[in-house]
Amino acid sequence: MADAGTSNGGSRGAGGPSAFTPAPVAILGPTGYTGLELLEIILRHPGMRVEYLGSAREKQPRIDAEFPRLVGRLRGASGTINPQCEPLDHDAIAARCRLAFLCLPHEAAMEHTPKLLERGVKVVDLSAAYRLKDPSVYEKAYGHHHSDAKNLEHAVYGLTEIMREQVARARLCANPGCYPTAAALALLPLLRAGVIEPGGLIVNAASGVSGAGREPKPNTTLVEAGENFSAYGIGVHRHQPEINQTLHLGTPALRAGVHPHGVLFVPHLLPIERGILETIYATPTSGKVDTARVMDVLTHAYAGEPFVLPRTDAPTLHDVQRTNGVHINARVVSGRVVIVAAIDNLVKGASGQAVQNANVMLGLPETAGLA
Amino acid sequence: MADAGTSNGGSRGAGGPSAFTPAPVAILGPTGYTGLELLEIILRHPGMRVEYLGSAREKQPRIDAEFPRLVGRLRGASGTINPQCEPLDHDAIAARCRLAFLCLPHEAAMEHTPKLLERGVKVVDLSAAYRLKDPSVYEKAYGHHHSDAKNLEHAVYGLTEIMREQVARARLCANPGCYPTAAALALLPLLRAGVIEPGGLIVNAASGVSGAGREPKPNTTLVEAGENFSAYGIGVHRHQPEINQTLHLGTPALRAGVHPHGVLFVPHLLPIERGILETIYATPTSGKVDTARVMDVLTHAYAGEPFVLPRTDAPTLHDVQRTNGVHINARVVSGRVVIVAAIDNLVKGASGQAVQNANVMLGLPETAGLA
Amino acid sequence: MADAGTSNGGSRGAGGPSAFTPAPVAILGPTGYTGLELLEIILRHPGMRVEYLGSAREKQPRIDAEFPRLVGRLRGASGTINPQCEPLDHDAIAARCRLAFLCLPHEAAMEHTPKLLERGVKVVDLSAAYRLKDPSVYEKAYGHHHSDAKNLEHAVYGLTEIMREQVARARLCANPGCYPTAAALALLPLLRAGVIEPGGLIVNAASGVSGAGREPKPNTTLVEAGENFSAYGIGVHRHQPEINQTLHLGTPALRAGVHPHGVLFVPHLLPIERGILETIYATPTSGKVDTARVMDVLTHAYAGEPFVLPRTDAPTLHDVQRTNGVHINARVVSGRVVIVAAIDNLVKGASGQAVQNANVMLGLPETAGLA
Amino acid sequence: MADAGTSNGGSRGAGGPSAFTPAPVAILGPTGYTGLELLEIILRHPGMRVEYLGSAREKQPRIDAEFPRLVGRLRGASGTINPQCEPLDHDAIAARCRLAFLCLPHEAAMEHTPKLLERGVKVVDLSAAYRLKDPSVYEKAYGHHHSDAKNLEHAVYGLTEIMREQVARARLCANPGCYPTAAALALLPLLRAGVIEPGGLIVNAASGVSGAGREPKPNTTLVEAGENFSAYGIGVHRHQPEINQTLHLGTPALRAGVHPHGVLFVPHLLPIERGILETIYATPTSGKVDTARVMDVLTHAYAGEPFVLPRTDAPTLHDVQRTNGVHINARVVSGRVVIVAAIDNLVKGASGQAVQNANVMLGLPETAGLA
Repeated sequence: MADAGTSNGGSRGAGGPSAFTPAPVAILGPTGYTGLELLEIILRHPGMRVEYLGSAREKQPRIDAEFPRLVGRLRGASGTINPQCEPLDHDAIAARCRLAFLCLPHEAAMEHTPKLLERGVKVVDLSAAYRLKDPSVYEKAYGHHHSDAKNLEHAVYGLTEIMREQVARARLCANPGCYPTAAALALLPLLRAGVIEPGGLIVNAASGVSGAGREPKPNTTLVEAGENFSAYGIGVHRHQPEINQTLHLGTPALRAGVHPHGVLFVPHLLPIERGILETIYATPTSGKVDTARVMDVLTHAYAGEPFVLPRTDAPTLHDVQRTNGVHINARVVSGRVVIVAAIDNLVKGASGQAVQNANVMLGLPETAGLA
Repeated sequence: MADAGTSNGGSRGAGGPSAFTPAPVAILGPTGYTGLELLEIILRHPGMRVEYLGSAREKQPRIDAEFPRLVGRLRGASGTINPQCEPLDHDAIAARCRLAFLCLPHEAAMEHTPKLLERGVKVVDLSAAYRLKDPSVYEKAYGHHHSDAKNLEHAVYGLTEIMREQVARARLCANPGCYPTAAALALLPLLRAGVIEPGGLIVNAASGVSGAGREPKPNTTLVEAGENFSAYGIGVHRHQPEINQTLHLGTPALRAGVHPHGVLFVPHLLPIERGILETIYATPTSGKVDTARVMDVLTHAYAGEPFVLPRTDAPTLHDVQRTNGVHINARVVSGRVVIVAAIDNLVKGASGQAVQNANVMLGLPETAGLA
Repeated sequence: MADAGTSNGGSRGAGGPSAFTPAPVAILGPTGYTGLELLEIILRHPGMRVEYLGSAREKQPRIDAEFPRLVGRLRGASGTINPQCEPLDHDAIAARCRLAFLCLPHEAAMEHTPKLLERGVKVVDLSAAYRLKDPSVYEKAYGHHHSDAKNLEHAVYGLTEIMREQVARARLCANPGCYPTAAALALLPLLRAGVIEPGGLIVNAASGVSGAGREPKPNTTLVEAGENFSAYGIGVHRHQPEINQTLHLGTPALRAGVHPHGVLFVPHLLPIERGILETIYATPTSGKVDTARVMDVLTHAYAGEPFVLPRTDAPTLHDVQRTNGVHINARVVSGRVVIVAAIDNLVKGASGQAVQNANVMLGLPETAGLA
Repeated sequence: MADAGTSNGGSRGAGGPSAFTPAPVAILGPTGYTGLELLEIILRHPGMRVEYLGSAREKQPRIDAEFPRLVGRLRGASGTINPQCEPLDHDAIAARCRLAFLCLPHEAAMEHTPKLLERGVKVVDLSAAYRLKDPSVYEKAYGHHHSDAKNLEHAVYGLTEIMREQVARARLCANPGCYPTAAALALLPLLRAGVIEPGGLIVNAASGVSGAGREPKPNTTLVEAGENFSAYGIGVHRHQPEINQTLHLGTPALRAGVHPHGVLFVPHLLPIERGILETIYATPTSGKVDTARVMDVLTHAYAGEPFVLPRTDAPTLHDVQRTNGVHINARVVSGRVVIVAAIDNLVKGASGQAVQNANVMLGLPETAGLA
């Protein structure tokens, strides 16, 4: 992109520093891992400031009591943050913030989003509430009624590299799921270029345990998850319809009808804190599709993109952890296209992409605050 | 010891194999980590067989549904185990078992122990219920009333190497805590030999997360406990009075009165499954006490002991994990005696020592089933 | 000992304990991870004793100096092991041992195997030297000349469950690779039953770091491999031809000709010590092939097998670590057969299967020493 | 950028943004872990730019080939970094840089430092070369001759909070060791206030594996270091004399003579990437010294310090990892003062403190670039 970087506080450049006021934003539900990650990112952001921490708990906590690593570190690049969480008061949020990041459960997101939009607050929703266009698909995947079909219609799916223009105009951005982000960025250019078949796609994925949230569960203790590895939700994970929808809507040639089975998505649980690696298997559309061709497609698709890196060797999770980067390698071997994509599930797979979307929605440089 | 090893199924030798019947035992509360460890140990035991798995849950589980790693592996060295847990029926246990291992909460242990003893079942209790001789000390440390002072009197503290003769005659064995096992085996010989001062002892310890049990807790998830390390219960941990009691009672010269502050015990939480390493600081009783002298004391104290290994270099946890071993190094440096002791908290610190005690109580070779 | 373990040291029963002499064996190259694992297994073996530890190092080490966890633990179920390694003296080995386990580099295995066989010593070779039937395939995969084509001809590929009869008659057993063991046991029954297509198979695998050996490498340090995950050797790993050969030779219908590309094998490096999980993708041969059918095939194929467990839910690595078990789950979803297989790479994937093969070769109970 | 970050690029304020030019610096030896950490910190620094990456390797690498996570991320807050490493050319460095960070081996640091100082380049040396004032103490601890006694005399020990004024005037800053940083910041205020005895101090410390550097070693592989814990260098570690010197020189009352044995320092190796936790034991100078008093001393000593946080509960490593923070808890229990201090060994224990010192030396805001 043009003037990426932490430059001038407004994507169209212009004014001197005196003209500059950091955009005030709210984080609703800051006590989970995506909330903490958002906070740490925005602390380094030269053009955004956390003005409001909103908690649904009866007794609102101090955020630095929840996360002692924040004590003394709430003086950010754009001002100091008040550590005291406040109630989810829509009027107060609207009075003080231009945009709200929602790190709430799906159902709570559907409750608060309409009230914030009504009051003119832009919303980046990190839940799954507004990701699936068809409420019946949503209801089947998530097991509860979709209570805000009205806003679902205009919600923009915030896969920034693909949807940048729509995000810029959005009032409500549905921040993509972690697994779908990596899968879609890896596959869309290849599908659009017609070098891989739309049918028979297999997304074999592995994620760190932070993807399961902060709530302790029997299978997420160190003793159970440590030194372990397993597949789960084989072919029935909630992110499978999201991947299918994105590939379907994102590929003009597919809109008429996708492979009846769609993508097969098989996630695994890694014994680490963070990171997603997806090893994706596709069928080349012809014998002429070779490694050079698939890498060429990716390289052209992501030329100028600050966060997506096509590379000729396979990435590791260390290459992307704690960055907003997406590293993608593709090759043709044994008659298959094998694509390996790596992201940090808490950054590009959640809070980093949320800030990227917010930057675009607020007219800030897209890379501001993101490393 | 005399005929250690998995030899002849009776410590006094005698009969041929036809005379041999594995001792039937019960495990009560087998669904926690110490229960699983007990089961895996006894599966390899040539002279002991798990006859009864007793669960306090309303609906008794199959143990191989709780722990799928047991499926197909319940054919042990001394017969096959029935995976179906049964209720805590004292009469049934007495009818079928010679000894019961109790892996129950402290309060449940005090409830079931008297009923088993009455029926002639020997008990090895892995809870803390019978470790502290003074009920008021117990109540202060554990925060609830001690409801079985009667059996407390004759309970034998099962630090096998130190209490072997008493254990052999015991009907009720209080299996020592994990931290106290390492601390007492490291310190008692040096205190008895008069080479270290009884006052000012510091036990700096670190344990794997399995020590916190199988129940998920906010600080034991992989995300929280992984890549982390911290001190807890500084000077106020429940094992501090247990260590003090053992050193006091185990050292003739101390019985008249110990240092007013006793031991200072500072445990830490390691980001691993299992293992305890204790780095212990003591003051030599004279300038003549050097490394050779303290190692000599340990070597003599543990000559012939199958599980305790005094060594001249510092042990690591890998040296003892999944064994019943206790590795101890001691040296004099900077005017201090520094002792490093390593055990596996689930083996020598719990289920391994429990089997060692049961072996002694049942007249089996002490090392049977233990590696 | 009398009749502990899986009976009496001879698969056809017979004599009393006095008639029983543990089979003396050699471990050549015991200072790596498979050597240590072998030693720990054989220590628990009621019918096998390590008589000879042979090292190629100029100054032969004591094995308990290499691995301090062995100090004091070399008193096994079948006698005590001499910790002192000896030179690779073929005559001495032949004079004292019935069978040798070779944990040597591939090229050293080709050098020593002929000399041991000549002297009447049976060999279980844990290297890759005798796995691939076609020397030219071997040379391409391993990058050096195959110097013992003569013995290659009669070497038996020791995938015990599939090759039991041949193993029983073998003088030289090529112990399978870790990844191929899991892949072949998962796929062969389904290929043989004709429920999956032989073409288009994808084996997506992940292994713990011990699979890379004991030698430190830049990518196996804790800092590099910890909290990380990555694919490597995509479609070009040495185990790919081994998997192809096993599926080809093991499936009568395939012998006439396999899919031109064969299996696509994609291994990944897990941030753990041990364990292999393979997630395998196949195409059902008809729309009638459903989950019940594939599970039924596996259940029948492995009925009575002590180590292979078909199961209806997906296994985790904790279910098989430190056991010789193979847990296999299969299902039909999104038009694919998805199979998940789990083993411990150091046990069923190396030293456990080696002991299983040796048991069969020596007429001992197949499960002896194995949990 | 204008005024993002901790103000305006000069601690004394002054000029507008147009007057602002980021300070050009060199990193010599950037391919180790401290080099990478420095680079990542300075990328976020609003007033510093890496102008020169100097490598001693014959063929200078690209830094983003060494660390693929840097690809596409070298556009920093103060400009873009050239990824190509250059030779260690003192003239070129002097022509282009105001300050050099040395991440070289001790002996190389002594070779290059004089040449850089001669040419007017300020130096922050992250090796141990200039930490110990007495060359004979250095030579005993590090086993080689000190070849630059001349510059040793004026080198300033960069424990910033204690030595701020001297650092501001320094041309050569000896960046403190990781362990000594935590120990000295924890102990100096208490020694100065006279609430703890100078004799009998015990520093029980534990560090992540990154402290051992990037070079693979037999004990730092994931298999050996993972799920492990051990003590090393008990009482003889190189950082023990550094701690002694700092406490001695930093405490006026001690200059006349310290306890004959000095501090006893016992480090341990944690199975994690990064972080140091020190549990320190001291003797209170009187029975009146209680928890309130020791916390009060720390709170006053560090009032206004941006990075040092005295706190009433014990810190964990998660509280400080990837920050420049030092969290310190102290309490009196069982007649002892127990202090727990946590830092990130690669940040406050190395590269973060190096940037903090460089900020002070260059007149930049001390917290610039540091979180």
